[in-house]
Amino acid sequence: MDCVFCAIAAGQIPSTKVYEDERTYAFLDIAPGSEGHMVVIPRAHSHDIREVEPADLSAVFAAAQLLTRRAYEVLDCDGVNVINNCGAPAGQTVFHTHVHVIPRYTGSDKDRVGHPWIPKPASAEELASLGAKFAL
Amino acid sequence: MDCVFCAIAAGQIPSTKVYEDERTYAFLDIAPGSEGHMVVIPRAHSHDIREVEPADLSAVFAAAQLLTRRAYEVLDCDGVNVINNCGAPAGQTVFHTHVHVIPRYTGSDKDRVGHPWIPKPASAEELASLGAKFAL
Ligand SMILES: [Zn+2]
Ligand SMILES: [Zn+2]
Repeated sequence: MDCVFCAIAAGQIPSTKVYEDERTYAFLDIAPGSEGHMVVIPRAHSHDIREVEPADLSAVFAAAQLLTRRAYEVLDCDGVNVINNCGAPAGQTVFHTHVHVIPRYTGSDKDRVGHPWIPKPASAEELASLGAKFAL
Repeated sequence: MDCVFCAIAAGQIPSTKVYEDERTYAFLDIAPGSEGHMVVIPRAHSHDIREVEPADLSAVFAAAQLLTRRAYEVLDCDGVNVINNCGAPAGQTVFHTHVHVIPRYTGSDKDRVGHPWIPKPASAEELASLGAKFAL
């Protein structure tokens, strides 16, 4: 099996399970950005989020929501980031769709997560021009 | 209306729409992290992702998936990040649940997004101890 996440979901590569159901499997990241950093995958293989079927997409984010709630309960975290990276330029490194659920701890060395983007105000003209591209 | 995103969904505050359906509304972020940075919200108010009802959760991430596909098509981006910040310590600044859909452009000044976390390998003992906390 060439895909490491397919192999993890099938139990052929060991992982530390935090949740599973019929459509999803979730486990601890072995190189976490914070204590308790989790990865949720659909059992069905897909390259990235663009390809995931509706029922799997719902199931993956329902699992991410459940694990967000659980992280507050069992890890006593202060916040959570839920992140999907689509494509290598966005930071995707394993090409089986996955969602990161990353507990946050204010002012703690358990937390190595920063704000991912630098905001820059857009002009009204820029917004109108971009919005027009999305008109159907 | 006290919630700025409820007001945006209701059309009481102007925004640049990129998508809408019965349950969701999506618009361009006015202080984007990259060109075409979008925000998807459920029309129904909730404080953060932990509170969102299942049908709204599915609808919001289905919209995020659709907008990810559209971003590749109409913006010619190289990747996309889909991000939910839950709680102020995780970077949430508006307390109406929302999902960021952020197009990525390799080596371009249109892109002011970085990798959000520094990975650090966890020991087998740490993983086992954390995993045990999630056992039901
Ligand atoms: Zn796979
Ligand atoms: Zn609201």
